[in-house]
Amino acid sequence: MRITALAGGVGGARFLRGLLHHLSGRSDGPHTLTVIGNTGDDITLFGLRVCPDLDTLLYTLGGGVHEGQGWGRADETFAVQGELAAYGASPQWFGLGDRDFGTHIVRSQWLAQGRTLSQVTARLAQRWGLPEQGVTLLPMTDVPVETHVVLEEDGEQRAVHFQEWWVRMRAAVPAQRFVVAGLDRAAAAPGVLGALRDADVVLLPPSNPVVSIGIVLGVPGVRDALRGTAAPVVGVSPLVGGAPVRGHADACLSAIGVESTAAAVAGLYADFLDGWLVDDGDRDGMVAAAPRGLTVEATPLLMRDLEHAARISGSALDLALGLARA
Amino acid sequence: MRITALAGGVGGARFLRGLLHHLSGRSDGPHTLTVIGNTGDDITLFGLRVCPDLDTLLYTLGGGVHEGQGWGRADETFAVQGELAAYGASPQWFGLGDRDFGTHIVRSQWLAQGRTLSQVTARLAQRWGLPEQGVTLLPMTDVPVETHVVLEEDGEQRAVHFQEWWVRMRAAVPAQRFVVAGLDRAAAAPGVLGALRDADVVLLPPSNPVVSIGIVLGVPGVRDALRGTAAPVVGVSPLVGGAPVRGHADACLSAIGVESTAAAVAGLYADFLDGWLVDDGDRDGMVAAAPRGLTVEATPLLMRDLEHAARISGSALDLALGLARA
Repeated sequence: MRITALAGGVGGARFLRGLLHHLSGRSDGPHTLTVIGNTGDDITLFGLRVCPDLDTLLYTLGGGVHEGQGWGRADETFAVQGELAAYGASPQWFGLGDRDFGTHIVRSQWLAQGRTLSQVTARLAQRWGLPEQGVTLLPMTDVPVETHVVLEEDGEQRAVHFQEWWVRMRAAVPAQRFVVAGLDRAAAAPGVLGALRDADVVLLPPSNPVVSIGIVLGVPGVRDALRGTAAPVVGVSPLVGGAPVRGHADACLSAIGVESTAAAVAGLYADFLDGWLVDDGDRDGMVAAAPRGLTVEATPLLMRDLEHAARISGSALDLALGLARA
Repeated sequence: MRITALAGGVGGARFLRGLLHHLSGRSDGPHTLTVIGNTGDDITLFGLRVCPDLDTLLYTLGGGVHEGQGWGRADETFAVQGELAAYGASPQWFGLGDRDFGTHIVRSQWLAQGRTLSQVTARLAQRWGLPEQGVTLLPMTDVPVETHVVLEEDGEQRAVHFQEWWVRMRAAVPAQRFVVAGLDRAAAAPGVLGALRDADVVLLPPSNPVVSIGIVLGVPGVRDALRGTAAPVVGVSPLVGGAPVRGHADACLSAIGVESTAAAVAGLYADFLDGWLVDDGDRDGMVAAAPRGLTVEATPLLMRDLEHAARISGSALDLALGLARA
């Protein structure tokens, strides 16, 4: 079975690790998983290219992630960051550990040597054992794109990098809108559109619908490929009981004028979504508002651990397989 | 008193730290020290610009050096290097610690932003407290130059970067010659020639006469400035009892057809050297061979600790002041 998933960072990575765990227990293998990762929140820090969502996917699927925080490396130290602070280099609000710096240094070196982000990501993925797990990690595009957030302060509008808003401001300053520089001209990376068209199942993990999934959907051709694919497309709501589990999805939805409800999020995917898995606590509101033709199922969506994530991803996969047979 | 010194790495840095210690005990201050650092062994590793001699000078004069090895940072960890190895990045023969990486990252970032190496070095020196000590550290040139070593293996000549020969091969493969790419067209960095012309004393620490001092002397204008300066120029022999204290000075001298003797090294500086401080063990050979007009003094030259280095640098300074009075 060829499964293709769009993904942002922590939520997507945990869901997909659960999916791999689930797949390893199924008897209908072998399966392959192609992950199309968001690169909109990539940022250049200290001259090094940092790809937060790709890194979270690599570290989580490769067994190197800091479990407690969901991103960054386990057993991390911070000598480099301390030195940069001592030299007065900025910014200091983005916490980068020494092991993490290793990834950014080697990525930046390989990019500077002329490799594409796809090629670099494939090399990084080898170290993390993704090919052995049947996983191909693709950046959504090889073109550098960056999500900026337009803020209004004292009547004046200014734009900051998404990471500055997300990490430094903790999304506490209301976003007026998101502008993704270069996205409308960014070609999908090699393999991205084919992986959507030729999939047996397409899954949308519970990633942020605006600044993760929403950015991937903005890559020219991706939305058309989702509309045109023969595969069932099943999404998992990022909301649990009407609130995001982590991150600031509500602040992002608010910025684009969308309610923080499972139904409203499904509405963002209405043109291609076949199945929608919501939390038990959101079942009632969802059933009342479900668009025609959308199959909705409910299950507890809180991913407390790997077993929970595996169960949820199994439910999403079963929902998709049921739709495929239908 | 305005003192200007040329310097390579460990030997130069220890001598100059001793000089600062000596100066702090003199009553005829204040004094300023301008250090012109060799950049010929600079290298780009993992996309980052590494300046081994400038860093050794910064760390040693700033109190952050690893005392045992004489270069690199004290209390160092190696998480980044471990990651780079895990990703299969090369080379692995150049040991870079995490704290050290901080310096290379910030230097590379500032260079990429368009600052010159002089400007970057001045910013780095601030963090290490050099201005407060009256020290100005100048790279010999702002133009990237790199010393390459021509080797002959199986009848074929090939060139490797100086660091590969020095660090990976430990200078065990005989060097045919040294080629410093770009040196003949490299303008001296701002302040370099003036610091030599306007000095009250010029000192040559016991740095490698071929690949440290010798490279600085190859910067256009430096040798002329040394010949033309009104200041006495006094050098300290890098040999102790006819052998280099550390490093591979003998292998470097051999490559350029010069004997490893204090007299032969003085001969490399014959056109501008006024005074020459040699080790007690080299006194006899030196006195017999001293060129006309060169004032030679002898003293134990092994820098066992800061006090020894201070005493040696004091002897060199006194020798220079005696020549200035003469």
